[in-house]
Amino acid sequence: MAPQYLSGDKAAIEEFIDRFDVFLFDCDGVLWSGDHLFPNVPETIKMLKARGKQLVFVTNNSTKSRADYKKKFDKLGIPAEVDEVFGSSYSAAVYIKRILQLPSPKNKVFVLGESGVEQELDAEGVPHIGGTDPAFRRDIEPEDFVKLGDGSALDPDVGVVLSGLDFHMNYLKMATALQYVQRGAIFLATNIDSTLPMAGSLFPGAGSSGAGLVKAVGREPLSLGKPSQAMMDAVEGKFKFDRSRTCMVGDRLNTDIQFGIDGKLGGTLAVLTGVNKKEEFLAEGAKTVPMAYVDALGDLLV
Amino acid sequence: MAPQYLSGDKAAIEEFIDRFDVFLFDCDGVLWSGDHLFPNVPETIKMLKARGKQLVFVTNNSTKSRADYKKKFDKLGIPAEVDEVFGSSYSAAVYIKRILQLPSPKNKVFVLGESGVEQELDAEGVPHIGGTDPAFRRDIEPEDFVKLGDGSALDPDVGVVLSGLDFHMNYLKMATALQYVQRGAIFLATNIDSTLPMAGSLFPGAGSSGAGLVKAVGREPLSLGKPSQAMMDAVEGKFKFDRSRTCMVGDRLNTDIQFGIDGKLGGTLAVLTGVNKKEEFLAEGAKTVPMAYVDALGDLLV
Repeated sequence: MAPQYLSGDKAAIEEFIDRFDVFLFDCDGVLWSGDHLFPNVPETIKMLKARGKQLVFVTNNSTKSRADYKKKFDKLGIPAEVDEVFGSSYSAAVYIKRILQLPSPKNKVFVLGESGVEQELDAEGVPHIGGTDPAFRRDIEPEDFVKLGDGSALDPDVGVVLSGLDFHMNYLKMATALQYVQRGAIFLATNIDSTLPMAGSLFPGAGSSGAGLVKAVGREPLSLGKPSQAMMDAVEGKFKFDRSRTCMVGDRLNTDIQFGIDGKLGGTLAVLTGVNKKEEFLAEGAKTVPMAYVDALGDLLV
Repeated sequence: MAPQYLSGDKAAIEEFIDRFDVFLFDCDGVLWSGDHLFPNVPETIKMLKARGKQLVFVTNNSTKSRADYKKKFDKLGIPAEVDEVFGSSYSAAVYIKRILQLPSPKNKVFVLGESGVEQELDAEGVPHIGGTDPAFRRDIEPEDFVKLGDGSALDPDVGVVLSGLDFHMNYLKMATALQYVQRGAIFLATNIDSTLPMAGSLFPGAGSSGAGLVKAVGREPLSLGKPSQAMMDAVEGKFKFDRSRTCMVGDRLNTDIQFGIDGKLGGTLAVLTGVNKKEEFLAEGAKTVPMAYVDALGDLLV
C-alpha cells in the first residue's frame, strides 16, 4: 500500500497519533543531525508525552552509552530519561548477559569499539578487554604476529568478540579479534550500518569499521542493532508494549523501517531529514515501504 | 579431470617440466612462509633456470616493492632478479600509468597501504598522497569530520583511490578515501586476499584491511592482483610469453590456480605448503582444480 503523506494534514496526523500508545524513535537523522537539532523536535516530543504516549529512543549508535545520550538530550533540550534510551551497545550487553549467559570466567568480551560499549558492558557486569585500552591503540609489531599466532598474547577467558563503531580501529585490534574468533569466540556486532551521516556527508559506520574482521573471518556476525529482531526482543523485554499499538519512527528504510515491519509493529513512520529520500519508498517495487511519512518530525506538531 | 600427483614420480615430473617454457610462481606459501624458507627451494629454482625456463615471481603482497622482494630473495639464497618479480603494487602502478592514463594533474593517487605501493607508483612516475605519510597516521578529530565533509581537507587532484594491505589502517584514512570515491575517484585495489598466512596462523589480508572502504562505498574495487586478469595482461605485456607453454605454480586455489585457469595457461601446479589442502581440490564438485600437485615445491628436484 502506498504510504500516507502526513505533513500539513492536521486531521490525518491526529488520527495517526491516536492509533498508537508507544513510539520508538531513531535519533540521528530524526531528532538531529550530529549536533544540529531539527526544528520543533523538543516541542513534538513534549506534545507526545503530554498525550500519554510512551517514548523509547532506539539508536544503533554504539559509541554512546545511555548516560551519554541523556547528556545529549539535556543539551539539546529534549525531555528524555536514561531509561527511555535503548542503544545497540546496551542491546548487545543485555544479549551477552541475559541470553548467552556464558559461564564465568569464560564470559570475557573482546571489544572493538568506543567507551559506549564498555560502559554498557560494565552496567551489566560483563568483563571485557580491548576497546579503549591504550595497549591496543598502537601499531602492530613483528613480535605481535608471533604472539598472536602462538596464542601467547591472547586471554583464554575471551568467549565473545563484540564489534561496534570504532574511530580508533587498527590492524592490531582486527588481527587480535580474528584470532579469538578463529579459536571459537562468539562473533557479535552492535550494529552493521555501513555509513554514518555526519557533517553533511557520509562517513564509515560500524558495519564498515568492522568489515575487515567480517572479511577475514569469512562470515557475518550476529547483529544486535536495528533491523535485527534481537534488538526488538530486548526492547520489548524491558518495556512490555503492545506491538499492534506501537509505531517505529526513523529515517533509514533498511534499518528503522525494516525493523518495525519485521517486528510486526502497528505502524512505521518515515521522516525525510536523514539518509533516505521519499523516491526510494515511493518507487514501483520498493522493498521497504513505511505506513506513513512526514518531511520532518516537527510536522507532527499541528 | 583429476589432478596428477607428481611427488616422488620422477618420470611424471620430467614430463611435466618439459611441457613448459615459462613458470609463474606465487611466493608466500610456495617458496617460503614468512621468513621460513621451504626445503630445496633455491635448488629447485636453480634447476629450472639451468634447464632454460623463464621464471616470473607473481605475488599479491602489496606491502613490498620489487626491490624489497629482490632483497628477500637474496637473503634466502634464491636466485632471482628484480625484473623477474611482478607484484600487485607494480601491477596497479602499471595499470594506472599505462591503461588509465589520467591527464595530469588530475592523476594523483590516494594510497591505503605501505611503502611497497608508494615505491612502485614512484617508479612509474605516478603522483600520490596518503600511504605512509605520518599526517594520516593519527586518530580522527572532530574538525576532520567538518573538513572532510565540506571537502576543504581534500586534494582536488586525486583521481584514484588505491587500496592495498595496510598495517597502519585507521578511521581517518578510510573516511578520507571514502570522500574521494564519493566525489568520483576511480576505486582500485592491489589485491583482495582476505587473509595473510603468517606465524603459523591467519592474519587479515589486503581484502580485509580494505573491506571497510568497500562496505562504506557499497561496491567492489577493480583488483589488480591475482586472480584478476588485469594482472595477467600486465605480466604478459612485459614478458611476451606463450600462454600454452606457461604454468602457474601456487598454493591458493581461488587466487593462484584460478588465475592460471582464467588466463588459459597451459598448466597449473598446486603446492600443499600454503593455504589450501588437497582435499579442497580433490573433492567431488571442487570449483578450482589444478592440473597437477606436489606436496612441496622442492619435490620437483629429483
